[in-house]
Amino acid sequence: MGTGDMNLHIAAQTDDGCGCDCSSEPADNGYTPEKKRYLARLKRIEGQVRGLHRMVDEDEYCIDVLTQISAVQSALKGVALALLDDHMQHCVLHAAQRGGDEAVEKLDEVSAAVSRLLK
Amino acid sequence: MGTGDMNLHIAAQTDDGCGCDCSSEPADNGYTPEKKRYLARLKRIEGQVRGLHRMVDEDEYCIDVLTQISAVQSALKGVALALLDDHMQHCVLHAAQRGGDEAVEKLDEVSAAVSRLLK
Amino acid sequence: MGTGDMNLHIAAQTDDGCGCDCSSEPADNGYTPEKKRYLARLKRIEGQVRGLHRMVDEDEYCIDVLTQISAVQSALKGVALALLDDHMQHCVLHAAQRGGDEAVEKLDEVSAAVSRLLK
Amino acid sequence: MGTGDMNLHIAAQTDDGCGCDCSSEPADNGYTPEKKRYLARLKRIEGQVRGLHRMVDEDEYCIDVLTQISAVQSALKGVALALLDDHMQHCVLHAAQRGGDEAVEKLDEVSAAVSRLLK
Repeated sequence: MGTGDMNLHIAAQTDDGCGCDCSSEPADNGYTPEKKRYLARLKRIEGQVRGLHRMVDEDEYCIDVLTQISAVQSALKGVALALLDDHMQHCVLHAAQRGGDEAVEKLDEVSAAVSRLLK
Repeated sequence: MGTGDMNLHIAAQTDDGCGCDCSSEPADNGYTPEKKRYLARLKRIEGQVRGLHRMVDEDEYCIDVLTQISAVQSALKGVALALLDDHMQHCVLHAAQRGGDEAVEKLDEVSAAVSRLLK
Repeated sequence: MGTGDMNLHIAAQTDDGCGCDCSSEPADNGYTPEKKRYLARLKRIEGQVRGLHRMVDEDEYCIDVLTQISAVQSALKGVALALLDDHMQHCVLHAAQRGGDEAVEKLDEVSAAVSRLLK
Repeated sequence: MGTGDMNLHIAAQTDDGCGCDCSSEPADNGYTPEKKRYLARLKRIEGQVRGLHRMVDEDEYCIDVLTQISAVQSALKGVALALLDDHMQHCVLHAAQRGGDEAVEKLDEVSAAVSRLLK
């Protein structure tokens, strides 16, 4: 059984949304439907950035390039908000339920991340 | 002589920063050093987005993914501000100097673009 | 013993940062040192906005008004981030520790608030 | 009558939007209907900030305070965009029409202002 199968197996036992490796517990790290959606969204954003490159390369009107940049920003913001939500609803929530200082640290990380996104 | 050579030839006569096709005058549309820099910046951003995809695929920690999204947002903002500046210093300025309603329209476009970027 | 003393008394038993009325437990709602700081910051921001009014009234240079608007935005963002952090470290954390659906709801509220701040 | 006189003549009848003191020409600096609207909008924003102070003072729920902060941010952004537009459509446009380096400097100022607003 390969690593991929292992991941699928673990995923079957978990509802962890973001799929991030946020703890040493296997159940917090798995291949989730959400992950597939994130990967698809990021693929689309990569295509949008490639489109920006093409637009500049073909001397398209600056304002149209700026409009497209705004669209990419908006798509990235959407991914960031979804990741943040999943992270809080899983990693942070589980840490809070386990008790101890871990949750405080995780919330500090969330605050710092939001601060960076707001820059 | 191919289209590419033609573009290089036109570029030699122009100082147009953004290289965008903002008027029917050939001098306003050319292959500029700025354009090369924009293309390089966008290639880097495309690579950053591909990196985001890899991070999610490899279940990296959500907060690290969010940090990287902020970096991409910042890089895109930098390109947008540079494009906006070039556009104003060339297309808008030239339109204003030519007189008539064209400059008013171009400034309306700039305002709308800034509004979208601020969203 | 006056109401003020009562508040101080409650505050002495609590580490609740934001002082917001986020639960029915008295310990989650108190007059805290953080609250005093928030009130002072908001007073300063009110003064900054009054300064904006004066600047426009005295026909000051638009760009200077815009610079001051950016300063107000930055000050408001600082208050928002601090409030968000306090709210998560107290109301959300306590809800998570109590267990049940309350924490999920509180995290949904946080996500929605971050989304509005990012607009 | 020269072109300069013509401009001054036109200026006397004009609705110069931002009313800011952006040139030494008296006609570029005046009490305009737009100015009244800006003053009214800033008064409202000042009231909103006073409302924030009251909300914190009365221990209102953090999330509701954050919602109100977002509303103030949005109102300030609206004023900033309107000021920027007026500034470009008047001060910058007139500078561009007068020719010389002044317009380039004014556009640099606009770019810097947009950059600060995007922070």
